Amino acid sequence: MATSSKLSDEKLIEEILKNKIKFHELDKFTSMPDKIRLKVIEKRLGVSLESIGNSIINSSDCKANIENMIGSTQIPLGIAGPVMINGENCKGNFYLPLATTEGALVASVNRGCSVINKSGGAYSIVLKNEQTRSILFKADSIVEAKKFSDWIEENFSELKKTAEHDEQFIEIKKIDRYIIGLNIWLRIRANTNDAMGMNMVTIAGKKIADYLLENYKNIEFISETGNLCTDKKASAMNLINTRGKKVIASVDIPESVIKDVLKTTSEKLIDLNYRKNLLGSAASLSLGYNAHFANIIAAMFAALGQDLAHVVDGSLGFTTVEKNKNGINFSVTLSDLQVGTIGGGTGLKTQKEGLSILGVFGPGNPPGSNSRKLAEIISVGVLAGEISLLAALCTKDLSKAHQKYNR
Amino acid sequence: MATSSKLSDEKLIEEILKNKIKFHELDKFTSMPDKIRLKVIEKRLGVSLESIGNSIINSSDCKANIENMIGSTQIPLGIAGPVMINGENCKGNFYLPLATTEGALVASVNRGCSVINKSGGAYSIVLKNEQTRSILFKADSIVEAKKFSDWIEENFSELKKTAEHDEQFIEIKKIDRYIIGLNIWLRIRANTNDAMGMNMVTIAGKKIADYLLENYKNIEFISETGNLCTDKKASAMNLINTRGKKVIASVDIPESVIKDVLKTTSEKLIDLNYRKNLLGSAASLSLGYNAHFANIIAAMFAALGQDLAHVVDGSLGFTTVEKNKNGINFSVTLSDLQVGTIGGGTGLKTQKEGLSILGVFGPGNPPGSNSRKLAEIISVGVLAGEISLLAALCTKDLSKAHQKYNR
Amino acid sequence: MATSSKLSDEKLIEEILKNKIKFHELDKFTSMPDKIRLKVIEKRLGVSLESIGNSIINSSDCKANIENMIGSTQIPLGIAGPVMINGENCKGNFYLPLATTEGALVASVNRGCSVINKSGGAYSIVLKNEQTRSILFKADSIVEAKKFSDWIEENFSELKKTAEHDEQFIEIKKIDRYIIGLNIWLRIRANTNDAMGMNMVTIAGKKIADYLLENYKNIEFISETGNLCTDKKASAMNLINTRGKKVIASVDIPESVIKDVLKTTSEKLIDLNYRKNLLGSAASLSLGYNAHFANIIAAMFAALGQDLAHVVDGSLGFTTVEKNKNGINFSVTLSDLQVGTIGGGTGLKTQKEGLSILGVFGPGNPPGSNSRKLAEIISVGVLAGEISLLAALCTKDLSKAHQKYNR
Amino acid sequence: MATSSKLSDEKLIEEILKNKIKFHELDKFTSMPDKIRLKVIEKRLGVSLESIGNSIINSSDCKANIENMIGSTQIPLGIAGPVMINGENCKGNFYLPLATTEGALVASVNRGCSVINKSGGAYSIVLKNEQTRSILFKADSIVEAKKFSDWIEENFSELKKTAEHDEQFIEIKKIDRYIIGLNIWLRIRANTNDAMGMNMVTIAGKKIADYLLENYKNIEFISETGNLCTDKKASAMNLINTRGKKVIASVDIPESVIKDVLKTTSEKLIDLNYRKNLLGSAASLSLGYNAHFANIIAAMFAALGQDLAHVVDGSLGFTTVEKNKNGINFSVTLSDLQVGTIGGGTGLKTQKEGLSILGVFGPGNPPGSNSRKLAEIISVGVLAGEISLLAALCTKDLSKAHQKYNR
Repeated sequence: MATSSKLSDEKLIEEILKNKIKFHELDKFTSMPDKIRLKVIEKRLGVSLESIGNSIINSSDCKANIENMIGSTQIPLGIAGPVMINGENCKGNFYLPLATTEGALVASVNRGCSVINKSGGAYSIVLKNEQTRSILFKADSIVEAKKFSDWIEENFSELKKTAEHDEQFIEIKKIDRYIIGLNIWLRIRANTNDAMGMNMVTIAGKKIADYLLENYKNIEFISETGNLCTDKKASAMNLINTRGKKVIASVDIPESVIKDVLKTTSEKLIDLNYRKNLLGSAASLSLGYNAHFANIIAAMFAALGQDLAHVVDGSLGFTTVEKNKNGINFSVTLSDLQVGTIGGGTGLKTQKEGLSILGVFGPGNPPGSNSRKLAEIISVGVLAGEISLLAALCTKDLSKAHQKYNR
Repeated sequence: MATSSKLSDEKLIEEILKNKIKFHELDKFTSMPDKIRLKVIEKRLGVSLESIGNSIINSSDCKANIENMIGSTQIPLGIAGPVMINGENCKGNFYLPLATTEGALVASVNRGCSVINKSGGAYSIVLKNEQTRSILFKADSIVEAKKFSDWIEENFSELKKTAEHDEQFIEIKKIDRYIIGLNIWLRIRANTNDAMGMNMVTIAGKKIADYLLENYKNIEFISETGNLCTDKKASAMNLINTRGKKVIASVDIPESVIKDVLKTTSEKLIDLNYRKNLLGSAASLSLGYNAHFANIIAAMFAALGQDLAHVVDGSLGFTTVEKNKNGINFSVTLSDLQVGTIGGGTGLKTQKEGLSILGVFGPGNPPGSNSRKLAEIISVGVLAGEISLLAALCTKDLSKAHQKYNR
Repeated sequence: MATSSKLSDEKLIEEILKNKIKFHELDKFTSMPDKIRLKVIEKRLGVSLESIGNSIINSSDCKANIENMIGSTQIPLGIAGPVMINGENCKGNFYLPLATTEGALVASVNRGCSVINKSGGAYSIVLKNEQTRSILFKADSIVEAKKFSDWIEENFSELKKTAEHDEQFIEIKKIDRYIIGLNIWLRIRANTNDAMGMNMVTIAGKKIADYLLENYKNIEFISETGNLCTDKKASAMNLINTRGKKVIASVDIPESVIKDVLKTTSEKLIDLNYRKNLLGSAASLSLGYNAHFANIIAAMFAALGQDLAHVVDGSLGFTTVEKNKNGINFSVTLSDLQVGTIGGGTGLKTQKEGLSILGVFGPGNPPGSNSRKLAEIISVGVLAGEISLLAALCTKDLSKAHQKYNR
Repeated sequence: MATSSKLSDEKLIEEILKNKIKFHELDKFTSMPDKIRLKVIEKRLGVSLESIGNSIINSSDCKANIENMIGSTQIPLGIAGPVMINGENCKGNFYLPLATTEGALVASVNRGCSVINKSGGAYSIVLKNEQTRSILFKADSIVEAKKFSDWIEENFSELKKTAEHDEQFIEIKKIDRYIIGLNIWLRIRANTNDAMGMNMVTIAGKKIADYLLENYKNIEFISETGNLCTDKKASAMNLINTRGKKVIASVDIPESVIKDVLKTTSEKLIDLNYRKNLLGSAASLSLGYNAHFANIIAAMFAALGQDLAHVVDGSLGFTTVEKNKNGINFSVTLSDLQVGTIGGGTGLKTQKEGLSILGVFGPGNPPGSNSRKLAEIISVGVLAGEISLLAALCTKDLSKAHQKYNR
């Protein structure tokens, strides 16, 4: 790639070192601002950042994703599966891409996939599907707060129309109202189709706020988000009422598979899940009644261009292991999965390829089908991870596995 | 790099496609198993994974980090700062590397850094520092459970000696005991110095369990981890009692800086923090009384080779904004930060360079000083992010910012 | 009252002491079983229970409230107020009866009432009003669980009809469905008018379960209550989604009243509420963001025949103190208040008189109006208690007050 | 009892009705202020409060418990048991007094006692025993906050001496320090022997605060309680770290007893406890992983002179049902039980008699033994209640029981 700097690179570096040009102003002076920034930091700190600079991402291709770019971070990407899924929204055998630095994780998920396959495949269902944003207002009195809340309910269809105007892919489903003292939160619930939709619903919230400021007296607009959404914070609100997608995955594992592949018994798995994932999580007042949802969520999110801060949300949920006729039913319920197949980091080179491994890059047909499919595949990945880790704990192999892989 | 396959690549691919060789067996047949796997998947699925394959990571260099590797995921890396820190464990001006796909984030942290600098720099302190693991036992009766618990207390020094044996960098500080019915959790608390230490403390736990199985009758060992740790799950246990490092960062921002840089007022910032971060989080029963810790944690963790599943833990904590003489005191308290400068993903090429930007790669001198320094720098990054986002919400610029950067 | 024993009292006592007759069988042999039981215990244990026996409650009048009665417990009853209320459901000046053994409590509430009166009275509103019960089912697979859940939604009107049949005072408003793995909770939400309604909604739940057992195959009925109600347990479900009544009360207190009566300032009250009731409760992950809701709830519930186990629910909620033009707005938001004016303990002699002090004994006209009125009065009592305690803490008088009254 | 009014009753009533004398001033004018207040309210409101006035409590005997007394509330008192207890602190057969207005409760606990007896009795243990109070301070900077916290640790013995001075029955065990931003909570943990001890530890906290104000510069004292105690609010702090007493009770129930008395099976009880008390409570993010601790706590607290607002704390905890050789182990773990045998309402006539039924009135020998004994007995009462209700739910008899007893 040719540089089209109006100033020479050396001159630019000099100016920055003298604090005459700032990092974020570089775009004006060069077509390769990332290279210049990298060199400045190398010079200033006396370090080599060769690997970071050795990136396949053009800064011009990811202006919507990053500012002050200097290169990229590379995370090793492994593959588990294929795993057989018989989902409401996806059917077939899927390879699972996992970008992680935690040894043993891919191997563990891979073992879980093998168990699922030998058990005839996993089921998965998207139970709920709505992105939320809470906008926050303040009234002068509780009487005014109540009036405002009532007005919102009565004028829902107008607010919906306002929020959906000029925005093809959002559908406002409901506006919940929460009052504490003089404070009123409007929690907007929307279907955002194949987009994860956080920004889409933020903009919808702003439109509603603007409409209210024009059409409703006696109310003060406090914030475009009031933490009742809840965005990227672990919360009971999300665990109970869901944000994003609530997804469930399940497999019936026969006793023979438990014995042959997992080297343990259904009794031990059921017992461990009860003591660790339920009683242990209750005893620590956890919002994650599971073994390690977060590990699989983090690895698949990284590989698939999802927002890594949403690992917080993805860790909320429940693992159950219950006796059935021929062995056990093993399930995971993810209360709060935030995924999309368009927007965010999905269009970056490696992330796009990650999505293509699952066949879910871009908008689905019908709209929303790709993100639902993605949610189901991830839930099965989580299921595989839970199966394998619980079994490893039954056979007391956790530290052994980490010693084998990590050292 | 030359291939040293005992079989030709084509032959290997063929064998895999016939299911005669499995992905994880490839190491035996080729020195470039990642390339072979990549090609198999490309063939099977009819997709191109050129970018994923275009990785600078040698699979032989990251065997401790990944299995079934096919390449790497590249996340754009941006730089905020430098930011002036006057910490108990780190002093100076630091550039903050952030790997993210969320537009506006680096710019936002950068603005926060600018505010901190204009305010004379940030303070930061590591208040607590201990990695934990809970191992789980079961007694036959509550009387036996109590006896076992008492025995653990009385024999702490022996257990500590056992756990520390042959392991230079761990120091067992305390073993807390929790009983529910017949179940007893031993929550081992340890200083693991510059390592994040999760595996270290897992192995210590296993040693203690093995010792107990030999030296204590009438107890059943259930699991190497009993979810009271709590690892990678949002929990009150961690919010209140801390796991990893509890870190605090703070800056006194003068009214003039609030006005000139943040375009708002101290009153508005204080009011918003009260309504959104406290009342809003309380109303949703959140464990994150903050605006977006998770965003900065995720971006810095990705850039610095930290475990991305620990973004869950890093999102727990509190933001406070309080009036002082000349403006406000703005603080963040992170209850549960999991970081290390050795082990995990810290040795990977780009991640190692990320740590070198902060001058904290590898073991510190004295031991533990590098990970404490890293914790303080991250806490100041989080502080910068909170300052900027709260101000943007005061001026109602959230959706505007996202529209500017993301579209 | 004449005894109509078929056996003499002495004989009966003898038979019981010989274990030939059991306590609960006494009704068959005597019209004064409570006296006999009392004597048996006095004899067996060698204690005097004269005061317990000195009860005004006839065992025949409270068969719906107690079994194996031996007398009654007497709790001193004090009066606070009158307090001026301008509620959506009640207007006027009300004396507040409080049965408590905690010194200083009535005096404290009384001071709060005085502040409210001098501030022109309190506002109060019932924001939500629904009793809930969750019935629990199990499916064979997640696919069946989803089908069942969908069926419930589609057949709501039929289920509603079934549940309301032969029961005049219940109105089924909604049935929420929650799925975890194979488990499905139906959370029935109902208006139970002037009854607190827990039993009413339990019976409704049983009717629905019975209907489903007849009309829906492939589902197993597990329990008449599945802990998602949530009944008498502190839960985020209730804090966020409400059970029983969500009530709010508020008063605007002028600076002069704060100074003259409370001997403190608006700044100090606002600051304390922020640090203690919000930050302190957040730091302990509490579901009560208040100072002592439970004290007033317990004392009024005892005086007014409400279920004392519901003190748990009544303690959930928020206190806010915010600056306004002439001083402060002080509010309490009770998320989960369980009250009724018919049924339960409301018909007992002293409790009925307690309700008559508030003018709310028995069914309201229109139905439900009495219980809403009661909820608003209690919320104002809670408001008074919060005002007074926060002020006492501002002036550092808590331990002083307890030393004055309790010693 | 003769009246010694300096003014005639009629005159006094007149003066009050004219607002010339206030309720709380009556003590100066009459020896029977409660009768006067009662009459005033009867006159003002036109109601009869005969039953409330028909009290055996002399207002002069309960000045430490109530202000503005007008009489008493009478709650019917029933007896369950006797139940056989083999506790660490209490051994023998105990009748359980329960004051309640909820029909079926005493009968249910009674059935549970019968099951326990037929199973050879219950075990019980006090696992932890400490009353707490958090006092709240504010520093100018986080550096000062840390210094203050360190100083507290270093000067613990001096603070302990100060707090214990002139107070025979308190023993300060530890002072935990929690920092958020500029706020520092000192959570004082103390053994208060036979007193529930809330006031005792409040006074100790005040002494420590006063000492600090004299001996430590650069710190601001905010409040005698900072909600980290946590007092009468449901909190994870108390669930995890305990306040008051952590008590556990357990019984091994043979299959034959389950079948004959409870009419169900061990499988069903284990299954229901898993689905309802664990999964259901987790799904609603409850702090009570049990069926109805609160019911028994409320009824025994009312009967035994305990603080009814502490029903909130008593509802926190866990029920477990686990398979053993001959049937099941059934346990309850109460995390946060607040009880005393001296002080509070324990000295009132009927409450004192209630305690005498258990043989625990007044100070124990050695000190603290009576309150520990009381805690264990209550825990067994809770155990009995849980056994019976879970069994009733297994046989689908909940609504039936309520229909039988309540209607």
